[in-house]
Amino acid sequence: MVVDLKINMGITLAHLGPKGTNTETAAQQYAQYLTTAKGELATLYPCPSIAQSLHCVAEKQATLAVVPVENSTEGTVTVTLDTLWQLPELHIQTEIILPIYHALLSCGVSLEGIKTVYSHPQALAQCQLWLETHLPQAQIIPSNSTTEALQHLNLEPTSAAIAPPRAALLYDLPILIEDINDYPDNCTRFWILGSTPSTRGDRISLGFSVPANVPGALVQPLQIFAERGINLSKIESRPTKRTLGEYVFFLDIESNGDTDQIQEALEALSQYTKVVRVFGHYDILGFNLPLR
Amino acid sequence: MVVDLKINMGITLAHLGPKGTNTETAAQQYAQYLTTAKGELATLYPCPSIAQSLHCVAEKQATLAVVPVENSTEGTVTVTLDTLWQLPELHIQTEIILPIYHALLSCGVSLEGIKTVYSHPQALAQCQLWLETHLPQAQIIPSNSTTEALQHLNLEPTSAAIAPPRAALLYDLPILIEDINDYPDNCTRFWILGSTPSTRGDRISLGFSVPANVPGALVQPLQIFAERGINLSKIESRPTKRTLGEYVFFLDIESNGDTDQIQEALEALSQYTKVVRVFGHYDILGFNLPLR
Repeated sequence: MVVDLKINMGITLAHLGPKGTNTETAAQQYAQYLTTAKGELATLYPCPSIAQSLHCVAEKQATLAVVPVENSTEGTVTVTLDTLWQLPELHIQTEIILPIYHALLSCGVSLEGIKTVYSHPQALAQCQLWLETHLPQAQIIPSNSTTEALQHLNLEPTSAAIAPPRAALLYDLPILIEDINDYPDNCTRFWILGSTPSTRGDRISLGFSVPANVPGALVQPLQIFAERGINLSKIESRPTKRTLGEYVFFLDIESNGDTDQIQEALEALSQYTKVVRVFGHYDILGFNLPLR
Repeated sequence: MVVDLKINMGITLAHLGPKGTNTETAAQQYAQYLTTAKGELATLYPCPSIAQSLHCVAEKQATLAVVPVENSTEGTVTVTLDTLWQLPELHIQTEIILPIYHALLSCGVSLEGIKTVYSHPQALAQCQLWLETHLPQAQIIPSNSTTEALQHLNLEPTSAAIAPPRAALLYDLPILIEDINDYPDNCTRFWILGSTPSTRGDRISLGFSVPANVPGALVQPLQIFAERGINLSKIESRPTKRTLGEYVFFLDIESNGDTDQIQEALEALSQYTKVVRVFGHYDILGFNLPLR
């Protein structure tokens, strides 16, 4: 039986758990924002994967999903785009951008004694240069989330984990070294998705497929925006998964405020594409991570 | 001391090891091709990561690197593009495409008894639907390579690993279920990279950066190819890692045989880009995986 949690619990926010992941921090931030700015009560709803948090909303088990979409160092979170392309019932409500800090947590005493480092592949990649420089001897082991990596620390004194400083506080674990990310301006975009279509905002995100192996098939859709002076802030290609060389393209475009012109451009787009899906028109909220 | 292995060992092929990974299979295939088609002796040189196999060649510790660049289900292998962008001394010599088969290996007897599944994140992603359908109860644990996942099997009777059937043979481990990839035409492109510039072939791969936040900044470079009827078979954006919204673009273009026109298009490209790097003009070899 699917329970409509909206009735029982106010707004529910599905997110990659458990408590202490960067996505959970984003969900906490958004819940605080809903309470202070909108007077709405929001409850967190942890899920074992990003895909499942999106499916939860599509199946009405949660009101909204909070999912990472792009990191400044590691790029697109591909599972988010791939899953969203398959779920036409979901619409982007808003975007939040969070600075991401990584710390090295360990129950051992020194950097020299560390033999293994656990973390989520995105976190490992965001600290790759630091690891090569400071822990060249350590074995690097991926985990399903930064929080899951922490379970090794008490069991293995020669292990370390890369996790947000907030996770160290939550799970009462010692931080050996703070701020180990390779790029100081490391930050992640998160989308808040729900079932309400969104039609206003500074940014528009969409996806489309084009006929395969036609010269210029991608240029025509892009020209539609260029001719109108509409800025394209991101383009990403993802495989259709059926055969090599067939792609779905994902674009972020900046709204120039001329709603009619944007609408006309989106209509023109359908002439040159096989399938078009507008994921949402939305605004961007910035937070300074007071939960750190 | 860096030893010039070319003198001692003929051609050396750096690749992600250990023995039994899909990349090692690709390297084996290419070594066989070098022997049978060119009469050259090639020795495999396993490395702990894709990035390190590329650095090995840049630092002249190996002659060539064999690296995965794109899978039909999971898309670009981003570490390959990111590392290549930083190593101007490397050039693509050729591409090989291999069909990729995944099998479920386990020392336990039944599917129902499996509690954990280990594999490389790419392999886990390529079998995601199968796992959700047939092993919804299992915990999914990423590993650094499909081969590394195998080390758990003898220790944990309730564990399974996703690996190529060839790895089962090599390590004498039982296959519980064959062909569990979600898409039957699952295949991977591998590049063979070396220090010799390559200037002829069916395909050209290149990367470029454009001025940030200029409307149409990406359209102008793409128009150069569209106007000349040159087909673009792939476009990929990767973050510069410095700040959100700054990208390097990677293109694959199909040579139309008109070398002068291609050369002229590449020269025109430099007018609209900040940095351009041509990774190589190269041909594609197909193999039917007799090593399976």
